[in-house]
Amino acid sequence: MQSIKDRFERYHFQWIENNAKQAVFPQGSEVIVNPVGTAPGFALQVDGKLVFVIPGVPSETQRMLPEGVIPILRRIFPQPVGHTLKQTIKTFGLGEGAVDKKLADVNFADLGVNVGFYPVFPENHVVLIAHADSREQAQKNLQKAQDEVTARLSDYIFSFGEQTLEEIIAEELTEKKLTIAIAESCTGGLIANRLTDVSGSSVYFERGLVTYSNEAKISMLNVPADIIEKHGAVSEETARLMAEGVRKISGTDLGLSSTGIAGPTGGTKEKPVGTVYVALADGSRTVCRHHTFRWDRKRNKLASSEVALMMLKNYLQDKA
Amino acid sequence: MQSIKDRFERYHFQWIENNAKQAVFPQGSEVIVNPVGTAPGFALQVDGKLVFVIPGVPSETQRMLPEGVIPILRRIFPQPVGHTLKQTIKTFGLGEGAVDKKLADVNFADLGVNVGFYPVFPENHVVLIAHADSREQAQKNLQKAQDEVTARLSDYIFSFGEQTLEEIIAEELTEKKLTIAIAESCTGGLIANRLTDVSGSSVYFERGLVTYSNEAKISMLNVPADIIEKHGAVSEETARLMAEGVRKISGTDLGLSSTGIAGPTGGTKEKPVGTVYVALADGSRTVCRHHTFRWDRKRNKLASSEVALMMLKNYLQDKA
Repeated sequence: MQSIKDRFERYHFQWIENNAKQAVFPQGSEVIVNPVGTAPGFALQVDGKLVFVIPGVPSETQRMLPEGVIPILRRIFPQPVGHTLKQTIKTFGLGEGAVDKKLADVNFADLGVNVGFYPVFPENHVVLIAHADSREQAQKNLQKAQDEVTARLSDYIFSFGEQTLEEIIAEELTEKKLTIAIAESCTGGLIANRLTDVSGSSVYFERGLVTYSNEAKISMLNVPADIIEKHGAVSEETARLMAEGVRKISGTDLGLSSTGIAGPTGGTKEKPVGTVYVALADGSRTVCRHHTFRWDRKRNKLASSEVALMMLKNYLQDKA
Repeated sequence: MQSIKDRFERYHFQWIENNAKQAVFPQGSEVIVNPVGTAPGFALQVDGKLVFVIPGVPSETQRMLPEGVIPILRRIFPQPVGHTLKQTIKTFGLGEGAVDKKLADVNFADLGVNVGFYPVFPENHVVLIAHADSREQAQKNLQKAQDEVTARLSDYIFSFGEQTLEEIIAEELTEKKLTIAIAESCTGGLIANRLTDVSGSSVYFERGLVTYSNEAKISMLNVPADIIEKHGAVSEETARLMAEGVRKISGTDLGLSSTGIAGPTGGTKEKPVGTVYVALADGSRTVCRHHTFRWDRKRNKLASSEVALMMLKNYLQDKA
């Protein structure tokens, strides 16, 4: 218990007797140290079965599983009975049912591979797990399964692995030594927020402007008032000028913009709720894409930020 | 099945045979309409037990439970056997264990009330559920339990009910006809993103600037370069000038700012990772608060946005 008390002191947390519960373990159990939190875990053999108890807080589980649980398993089962390998394939642009359908003719079982579908809005992740006697065989089976998935979903795959879209972009921008500034309307800061979720983003992320009002678009981004008047704040013209404007005032290599109608109100027949224009300017040319989503406000924002970041990612990966 | 096909058409979704599964129901089941998605649900009596099957997508469950499931239950059990009432109490500023401990001496069972603790980082929600023969009794028990909780946690409670912090702020700003502009550094657009998650936010949210670079703080917010040089970009002085600067250039009633070190790198001995300054300016005075969080990057951003919004909420509620 003293070691837990010390940890509370180190973190300037208040010690309360309730926390003392965290220091009581079942008889015969083996304590599993928690390197990042206050509550330790334990391992216990019950009726010949092994029970592991560790906190479910993701940051703690992520450390305690490989550092605490696996070593105990390795000690008890010194000869591994097989090899398991995992491959995540992240897709965007297809619904869950459509992903499932496109893969319906692949016999994953014959390949010795389990397949799982995980919708992480607005993305759909396909997870392949190969289990075989040898690492080489597992690797071979996994590669075969991955090839089958790739052949069917290539247009929608943006990542093989655990990297997030913003982490892929971070890597590309850092490698290519490019800087970026963002001008957002309907996404309300979400694009900037996602880009700055990556540690080290200050190297490439110069600034982000959430120009919600027309006045902000005019005075900060130099979008001409008559363009907004003529085409509307939600238009290809405005999106292009926002991307070009934010790039210019920030002195960055790239400018990325979004303008749309997140909803649930504000839609018209021509521009329904869920309409979004995203644009990317690099000084020599500006590309703009238009989408219409049919979700609620938060999911329209998320999907809009996704297409903006996807446009940026594709631009960066196409660039030599 | 035709009604599902029609719905796919209306939403311009591609119809695939896999979706046809959604139109097949067990024999003897009663279909539960899905007003917001493509997959209907159903109710079935098995061995004298009622089974309800509906999608788990939150937006669909939220509609189908009250509109589909409850009416069937009411029809089958016309005389309600009791009344259940629920009260959510949202707190911020105390850990889960400390909330639990502060309420340890309350005998909720004697009050006929169940209590649940739900950590929704960085908030902790206390949920009271009262069950009694009459609605009046349930209401009375719930009120007593709520009074006990309030007496012990009043300093940390920010909401009685389901409203989010940003929804409370939206209501206050709209009622008081006040406008706001945001200048963010370490929160990277998260404050703007949270405020614009509320429908109708364009009424009070004028613009948000994510001034990540010093150059952006100087050129856009008119923070003097020598202040940043002398006190640092992460300082009370810079936070105050950011709030005042964004208010001035935006012509809004209020200016709210954040500057800090989200981590995991960039900390110093004087200003460790997790340090944040948040400031609020209304033209006549500027208040600034300082916090040090000890989480990972994303949670430091979340906690920083929370203290900024909490400062804004308290200001608005104190204002006559």
